[in-house]
Amino acid sequence: MSSHQLSPSRRFGLLCGSLKPGPTNSIADVSGVSVGHKTIRNGDVNTGFTALVPHPGNIFQEKLTAGVEIINGFGKSAGLIQVDELGTLETPILLTNTFAIGAGVNALIRQAILKNPEVGRTTSTVNPLVLECNDGYLNDIQAMPLAEVDAIAALEAASSEVEQGSVGAGTGMSAFGFKGGIGSASRTFELDSGRFVLGALVLANFGRAGDLVLPDGRRPDPKDTQTSEERGSVIVVLASDVPLESRQLKRIAKRAGAGLARLGAFYGNGSGDIALAFSTAQNVLHQEENDFVDRRCLNEDRIDILFRAAAETTQEAVLNAMIASPSTTGRERHQRPSLIDWLQDTSNQL
Amino acid sequence: MSSHQLSPSRRFGLLCGSLKPGPTNSIADVSGVSVGHKTIRNGDVNTGFTALVPHPGNIFQEKLTAGVEIINGFGKSAGLIQVDELGTLETPILLTNTFAIGAGVNALIRQAILKNPEVGRTTSTVNPLVLECNDGYLNDIQAMPLAEVDAIAALEAASSEVEQGSVGAGTGMSAFGFKGGIGSASRTFELDSGRFVLGALVLANFGRAGDLVLPDGRRPDPKDTQTSEERGSVIVVLASDVPLESRQLKRIAKRAGAGLARLGAFYGNGSGDIALAFSTAQNVLHQEENDFVDRRCLNEDRIDILFRAAAETTQEAVLNAMIASPSTTGRERHQRPSLIDWLQDTSNQL
Amino acid sequence: MSSHQLSPSRRFGLLCGSLKPGPTNSIADVSGVSVGHKTIRNGDVNTGFTALVPHPGNIFQEKLTAGVEIINGFGKSAGLIQVDELGTLETPILLTNTFAIGAGVNALIRQAILKNPEVGRTTSTVNPLVLECNDGYLNDIQAMPLAEVDAIAALEAASSEVEQGSVGAGTGMSAFGFKGGIGSASRTFELDSGRFVLGALVLANFGRAGDLVLPDGRRPDPKDTQTSEERGSVIVVLASDVPLESRQLKRIAKRAGAGLARLGAFYGNGSGDIALAFSTAQNVLHQEENDFVDRRCLNEDRIDILFRAAAETTQEAVLNAMIASPSTTGRERHQRPSLIDWLQDTSNQL
Amino acid sequence: MSSHQLSPSRRFGLLCGSLKPGPTNSIADVSGVSVGHKTIRNGDVNTGFTALVPHPGNIFQEKLTAGVEIINGFGKSAGLIQVDELGTLETPILLTNTFAIGAGVNALIRQAILKNPEVGRTTSTVNPLVLECNDGYLNDIQAMPLAEVDAIAALEAASSEVEQGSVGAGTGMSAFGFKGGIGSASRTFELDSGRFVLGALVLANFGRAGDLVLPDGRRPDPKDTQTSEERGSVIVVLASDVPLESRQLKRIAKRAGAGLARLGAFYGNGSGDIALAFSTAQNVLHQEENDFVDRRCLNEDRIDILFRAAAETTQEAVLNAMIASPSTTGRERHQRPSLIDWLQDTSNQL
Repeated sequence: MSSHQLSPSRRFGLLCGSLKPGPTNSIADVSGVSVGHKTIRNGDVNTGFTALVPHPGNIFQEKLTAGVEIINGFGKSAGLIQVDELGTLETPILLTNTFAIGAGVNALIRQAILKNPEVGRTTSTVNPLVLECNDGYLNDIQAMPLAEVDAIAALEAASSEVEQGSVGAGTGMSAFGFKGGIGSASRTFELDSGRFVLGALVLANFGRAGDLVLPDGRRPDPKDTQTSEERGSVIVVLASDVPLESRQLKRIAKRAGAGLARLGAFYGNGSGDIALAFSTAQNVLHQEENDFVDRRCLNEDRIDILFRAAAETTQEAVLNAMIASPSTTGRERHQRPSLIDWLQDTSNQL
Repeated sequence: MSSHQLSPSRRFGLLCGSLKPGPTNSIADVSGVSVGHKTIRNGDVNTGFTALVPHPGNIFQEKLTAGVEIINGFGKSAGLIQVDELGTLETPILLTNTFAIGAGVNALIRQAILKNPEVGRTTSTVNPLVLECNDGYLNDIQAMPLAEVDAIAALEAASSEVEQGSVGAGTGMSAFGFKGGIGSASRTFELDSGRFVLGALVLANFGRAGDLVLPDGRRPDPKDTQTSEERGSVIVVLASDVPLESRQLKRIAKRAGAGLARLGAFYGNGSGDIALAFSTAQNVLHQEENDFVDRRCLNEDRIDILFRAAAETTQEAVLNAMIASPSTTGRERHQRPSLIDWLQDTSNQL
Repeated sequence: MSSHQLSPSRRFGLLCGSLKPGPTNSIADVSGVSVGHKTIRNGDVNTGFTALVPHPGNIFQEKLTAGVEIINGFGKSAGLIQVDELGTLETPILLTNTFAIGAGVNALIRQAILKNPEVGRTTSTVNPLVLECNDGYLNDIQAMPLAEVDAIAALEAASSEVEQGSVGAGTGMSAFGFKGGIGSASRTFELDSGRFVLGALVLANFGRAGDLVLPDGRRPDPKDTQTSEERGSVIVVLASDVPLESRQLKRIAKRAGAGLARLGAFYGNGSGDIALAFSTAQNVLHQEENDFVDRRCLNEDRIDILFRAAAETTQEAVLNAMIASPSTTGRERHQRPSLIDWLQDTSNQL
Repeated sequence: MSSHQLSPSRRFGLLCGSLKPGPTNSIADVSGVSVGHKTIRNGDVNTGFTALVPHPGNIFQEKLTAGVEIINGFGKSAGLIQVDELGTLETPILLTNTFAIGAGVNALIRQAILKNPEVGRTTSTVNPLVLECNDGYLNDIQAMPLAEVDAIAALEAASSEVEQGSVGAGTGMSAFGFKGGIGSASRTFELDSGRFVLGALVLANFGRAGDLVLPDGRRPDPKDTQTSEERGSVIVVLASDVPLESRQLKRIAKRAGAGLARLGAFYGNGSGDIALAFSTAQNVLHQEENDFVDRRCLNEDRIDILFRAAAETTQEAVLNAMIASPSTTGRERHQRPSLIDWLQDTSNQL
């Protein structure tokens, strides 16, 4: 195993499932996928944008097949209805806090117009995809400091090095009473004579204190944190280079829920749990000239390996998000301890 | 227009929409599709099976892509959940009355085993598709006279000549206070350099007396019929030779609802309104050896022609079912007049 | 029939269905519901906000039961996922153009915070509901001139006098090749010993030129308009004072699709057709103290009258939107004739 | 803890979650719920019916609110579409093998007619609810030996003593490479000033060998069993005496999936995973005279306790099914070891 594969959780011997991670054990193992952040920390403000750029080209012109699963719909994410109807993704994906949906939507619209001046004039409009969690415990969400320029900054910062933890949209997030944030993981597998990968990027902000279960059975409990009613959420974005149709991607997205449940979650009432999956294998052209299109998809009998990878990467990405996030003091001196401190405490060893 | 295209409704000058019908103006215009009936009339018993055979081969081995839309779920149809999950059809489709679902399910299972001895042994089981309406007004539905052998008889009677009206599953059905039954229609259109077709087969047993609207605006009202609360249903099966993925077929199935609404329906509470669409263009192999499959599908921007055809054929197929069904006296001397009599009554002319 | 009931369509003898309209034949017949507009016309800019305020109180504290139906999901409306999950409405509803979703979301968030300073701090965040159509044919949608202040202006202008036609969000909309816009209608009916009402508010921006069918069978065709591919949408909001649970409201919302189909629509690929229904009969308290709540709902066997009313009011509200909108010249001198001119042309009489 | 609460899994110290079980730790802790079995063992035939009777009265006349979640729709269960549309249950629930759906449907129809002679004559028909798994590994499913009389026998055997393991529908089932079967569990909790219960009944026939995870982290692997591709399924029925509307019950049913995932499942492609939840708190009258009905439901903010109970009881019921089932030799000498043997093997201790 390369050092890259030593993700935050693996450094502590926590293994989620049995499949092998990709070279960076992050969603960037899916060729072309890049991730960027814009973090804002300023007094009680602890928030940001995280941008996932699905491929380096013009995503409006060269869309990707996608599917979405609403695990629990107590959420305000924008753009999901069209993904569900048409099975395509046509903008980068922004992650942010609940009250920055408007700024994110506007940024993606303006970026699409800039790159495609015909949008809303001689061709259709564009479907901005902005997914959110409520970081109001550590962040002064009412301040609404995030602007379009911050979303653009996250988009422009996108690279194949996926920074994890308290960064970008993850800056003010919490999970299972600990500090949450941005996490990622990947799994590789063989299909026909090739090697393929599925990667996850999560914005982890869910789970009641005391409910977390590690893969080895331990149950970390952040004793001194406020264990209020769950009002969190979690966003899971899955990417793969396997050719898949949207119905298959929707099925794969659903398996993110299995990964969350293995961590101890039961999709609490107040948690907006959303999973979105896309494939980079083929473009869906905005200006398709032909009436018919030839597409490759997966033999459905072989889909279990992707289901398994979806569950495993979701589970690991959440742990990575937590372990990569240091303990944090936020709005009104609210505190979240770090899971890394709990893991390093010798009294918690197996 | 050939004589074949003079469907029952067109003989009375009733034109549903603007697209051109296929050669037989029936679902059998989709090459390979055949339809058979088994009718039982015996005292208060007026019922039957109608079988739609999607292609002449082994449908379990060579499945077809399919999609389903539950327009109103007050119904007992079997097999739809799997079609929705996997997007495939793997048995012929049986239409019948509500209480013959069990007989139909058993018949399709036994037929699949007969043709594929490995079913349920060395390979998966099979998903029988049996769709139903309640013909209890004209038929003694409690008698449950339909047996597996009757379903098999309908399957074996399948031909490309689609008999319409009070036949098979349509024997005891009612619509808008008139006699209902089995109807069909088709539309053709150009895509790329080829000619394609979409056909509908309906089991029409829905609509309140007084609500029917003809395409020319007339409102036939069966004055002397019992206008009880609606407890009917309608099943719409759409077939096309256009290559389509299941998501597209689900969208097309949804447009059957537009055809029903143009007739005056509002999808009444007690009406189990179900639409299922499939494409004959490509097989989905049960024993697919390869991990990846190349499939052709429609450029989504060209799908409106199929939406339009779905609405038009559904509307016309219902009118054909009604006009092809003579006035009927059924269980306990319950009566349903025929729409053909209303149309031939000179006092109802425009 | 009072003069108020002489809606635009009724003045031309166009009757949609058989139920009796309420006193104003608008959604404001539902007690407590009010509607306001903010219109912007400035050169190539022809757009605006329309606000529907469900009741005069604090809607975040006193939510209403609601249900949503995605008739065709080619749309960017915000807030629908949570309505579907929780079955409640907790902000006013904004209608606007596709690119003003962000401004609308921000306005509703800020208004909710202003009235409920605990939002996102000691209680959950808020789910802003902003529904949209693409008015890019008559409006320079890329200009994005609508700001939060415009949404607030529409909210503050809300009254029980529902102005219809080319106003607010309807300013730049098109329908069936004619000028579209904002329309409304209502129906009343008896349940138990009381009189109840269901009203519709539509933002009509859908339908191909040549497809429109009037209730009397005539087919108005705007000969000189550009008959491009449909890229429109339609939003239907239904309100009723009947006590209904969210599942029932979702079923009612679905029947808006029947009203659209009666006008000749088939829910085109590029049309984001969304229906949302809510009941004003009972509040769902944000701070409910009790573990159990007693609610009244409709006996499901009596729901057909609401289904019928949903279809009829949707159909009539669209006609009202079109007839109330004068012919318009918009962006780049694009033109839309008015349906009222077609109706007043003696050569189009029956 | 009473001896009754020592469910099979608790006897081995396996605790699923933190809530307290009810007096019998079975679905029969929900007052009025009873369960019966009819088992058939005859050479290669190892199968049966399990009947869940929701209350002792006439369930067609006094329906219960219900909700359903299709976790993975590779299944043939009958009756779910109407439950989803109307939110009610109107027959007992039968569990059986895939090819006995027809027999089960017919049995429930005839039982409903016997008790309600007006069914299908002067009132609507009835929606039989028959849920299935494929027991073809241990059972000769092609033999189709189950008849209506066997379903009736299971219904008539219903009692509040819930027999678990290889009995009724569970006779030939497998799970995670071990013997599967019928299992049950319950959880109690306080709401307002009363004590309430939620119980699960599962038909466990899912999971790949090697994937099972015990609550203490151990991973039992049945070394000598055939580890073929997963073709199983799992049915979860949840009952509660908490007053709940159908939307809430659907949300609760979804949390069964969290329980399955905690066991190591990822909802495999070939697994028909279905969850159905109902509340016994209030009847929905078939012949409701009033237009409006007053119903009690749960304050949504208090629903997490039921989500948690759904996940915990599902997880425990599956373990109980497995531990209560002895090792079995079935069709063609196919074998399934028992989890109890693995647990009693000292080399597998923690």
